[in-house]
Amino acid sequence: MKLTVCRKAHFNATHRLNNPNWSEEKNRKVFGVCNNTNYHGHNYELIVKVKGEVDSETGMVMNMNHLKGLIDKYIIDRYDHKNLYVDIEDFKDLNPTAENIAIAIWRILREHIAKENELLIQLYETDRNFVEFSGEF
Amino acid sequence: MKLTVCRKAHFNATHRLNNPNWSEEKNRKVFGVCNNTNYHGHNYELIVKVKGEVDSETGMVMNMNHLKGLIDKYIIDRYDHKNLYVDIEDFKDLNPTAENIAIAIWRILREHIAKENELLIQLYETDRNFVEFSGEF
Amino acid sequence: MKLTVCRKAHFNATHRLNNPNWSEEKNRKVFGVCNNTNYHGHNYELIVKVKGEVDSETGMVMNMNHLKGLIDKYIIDRYDHKNLYVDIEDFKDLNPTAENIAIAIWRILREHIAKENELLIQLYETDRNFVEFSGEF
Amino acid sequence: MKLTVCRKAHFNATHRLNNPNWSEEKNRKVFGVCNNTNYHGHNYELIVKVKGEVDSETGMVMNMNHLKGLIDKYIIDRYDHKNLYVDIEDFKDLNPTAENIAIAIWRILREHIAKENELLIQLYETDRNFVEFSGEF
Amino acid sequence: MKLTVCRKAHFNATHRLNNPNWSEEKNRKVFGVCNNTNYHGHNYELIVKVKGEVDSETGMVMNMNHLKGLIDKYIIDRYDHKNLYVDIEDFKDLNPTAENIAIAIWRILREHIAKENELLIQLYETDRNFVEFSGEF
Amino acid sequence: MKLTVCRKAHFNATHRLNNPNWSEEKNRKVFGVCNNTNYHGHNYELIVKVKGEVDSETGMVMNMNHLKGLIDKYIIDRYDHKNLYVDIEDFKDLNPTAENIAIAIWRILREHIAKENELLIQLYETDRNFVEFSGEF
Repeated sequence: MKLTVCRKAHFNATHRLNNPNWSEEKNRKVFGVCNNTNYHGHNYELIVKVKGEVDSETGMVMNMNHLKGLIDKYIIDRYDHKNLYVDIEDFKDLNPTAENIAIAIWRILREHIAKENELLIQLYETDRNFVEFSGEF
Repeated sequence: MKLTVCRKAHFNATHRLNNPNWSEEKNRKVFGVCNNTNYHGHNYELIVKVKGEVDSETGMVMNMNHLKGLIDKYIIDRYDHKNLYVDIEDFKDLNPTAENIAIAIWRILREHIAKENELLIQLYETDRNFVEFSGEF
Repeated sequence: MKLTVCRKAHFNATHRLNNPNWSEEKNRKVFGVCNNTNYHGHNYELIVKVKGEVDSETGMVMNMNHLKGLIDKYIIDRYDHKNLYVDIEDFKDLNPTAENIAIAIWRILREHIAKENELLIQLYETDRNFVEFSGEF
Repeated sequence: MKLTVCRKAHFNATHRLNNPNWSEEKNRKVFGVCNNTNYHGHNYELIVKVKGEVDSETGMVMNMNHLKGLIDKYIIDRYDHKNLYVDIEDFKDLNPTAENIAIAIWRILREHIAKENELLIQLYETDRNFVEFSGEF
Repeated sequence: MKLTVCRKAHFNATHRLNNPNWSEEKNRKVFGVCNNTNYHGHNYELIVKVKGEVDSETGMVMNMNHLKGLIDKYIIDRYDHKNLYVDIEDFKDLNPTAENIAIAIWRILREHIAKENELLIQLYETDRNFVEFSGEF
Repeated sequence: MKLTVCRKAHFNATHRLNNPNWSEEKNRKVFGVCNNTNYHGHNYELIVKVKGEVDSETGMVMNMNHLKGLIDKYIIDRYDHKNLYVDIEDFKDLNPTAENIAIAIWRILREHIAKENELLIQLYETDRNFVEFSGEF
């Protein structure tokens, strides 16, 4: 039986949207206030979903505490209370849109989740704006 | 890389459920209090999801502000603070159930979303009742 | 020891704001889209708070199930899936603003709550608009 | 047109995680505090999703009140305010993890939902831990 | 300037309501399903509010991390994943109603909060049932 | 009759906590990760409460749209997508803790609310950290 286990986590971070190959004017036009020079921030809500077989001995797809531990170690401890645009190498050459943050998180966690399991990321930038990524290339 | 961007919006509207081809008695039996003559209302929560390729220059599938603008112009400005059963042509021949409202919204927005992108609608009538439509015919 | 017990309930209703002593124009100007002729509706969230002494035998101020029963009988069963402007006598001579609905609910419940206890009403018209009334005259 | 209708319900229950074939030590190691002898509990939130054709006469996939009735009768009335580990036969030989509870609910409701419709269960153990099951074997 | 700082925390616990001085029949009549012998549980949400002067050097009434630390040490670490009726000495002679749990938490934290500050406890047993206690005797 | 009307608003901003009169070491010790040099951010949720007499002609304490307009003009338009520590004059000599932001908002809005009405500010920095200020000096 295949089932999906989901774990929610939070981090508070700063970013701005900017494409260094564009003029200031174009960046302002495309990204609006999200381009503001001195940054703005969000309480990001992250949902990590892992789909796989239920183990008959534990009754679990994957231990939630283990999943929580991976998210804390590889994502929260690195992103929380940071400036994604300045402090985090993952976005050195990548505009930290919600889309790109979700893809970065997926790539990082993918290495730590059993190969036979599927991985899906939901990332809420605000209560009204969010993205979903399931590793579809 | 394919990713889904999601935007939440709200509108407050009135409706009643009624099939004009049925007797009053049958309408009452099938729709219960939702058939009440003088209407009742809801704070509808609408989630619009658009799935497509991430643009490498913007780091976005679609600009969230543009998506917000489409939802505001074609849905919220037309439905908010209205009586769906009386004021809105979309439901002239269509019972305004959550199902039919979601389908109507999908049809309207489908024309304004890039053809290569997928569109999915979630509509919450209450916190406990909601529907999902992805254009499956 | 004095403590406050709180119970949340819901009802879905329709209303419009209108002062029959005013011109159409003035009503429109003051109440905006809330004055729309064919009504609009809300999922009202009602929180009823009762403050009083904790009974040492039950460890309760008031049995939550009894409080739930009063709210259901006197408020939910009468307001839910109704048009407050048309169907409900409580608003025959009273504009059904969130303020006036909260006061009406307070007056009704006040008769069924023990005299020595205080009563406070919170009424959410939307997630972003709400009122509080504690019977202060 | 195929659409999904969703209904949310709640129950408050107690459980503990334990595999009777394992030693106390191994149970403690695998399940941590969830293995505590005297149980712990949750406010479970259950979302039941039914996907099917919209009936052109009713504008509904399935009457939400009927769906609510099924959930109440077969799940809530049996699980609410109960000890899943002790009181409920469904978990006599099954560790009541969120995964196994979701599968049990799916099996029970599957018999009462029209065969041509799909059924999906979401079960929130806490706001941060939840599972999804769509009957994939 | 006096201001209130608030911190939310969670614990998952089991309880049952029972007055050992009463007959089984009376307990059942007064407490209903909450009296069930094998317990039931909740995801308790606890809000701790501390009112006091804002320190001009820190711009804080009290460091939120210090407040979080007190709540974790004295409440969460002791109540989480426990059976309040069986495991916790605080309720040895006290029926673990939401009211009594809130009062117990207030008494415990009161000793660790600066004397000149006021303390208020909100405790949600479910989304719909909650209590508030400000130490009024 | 005195009643409280409440309006919720949102803004996304960046800040860091720092006392320029202290050493780096002391700032780090007191404010922890909130002192990080490159800032971090939040989705602030602001609730503005106005208590006053209900006008018998409008059935309102104060028009919610007018209140929304004041909040948008004087707070949201100035703080949203900004760096509170760098961009906003209100915090030129004031550490932008949740406490100080709430007090600043109260001072600003106080000038635009009718003198006979009371004003209370709730500010959520995260879902778990929030403050309340009612102008008590």
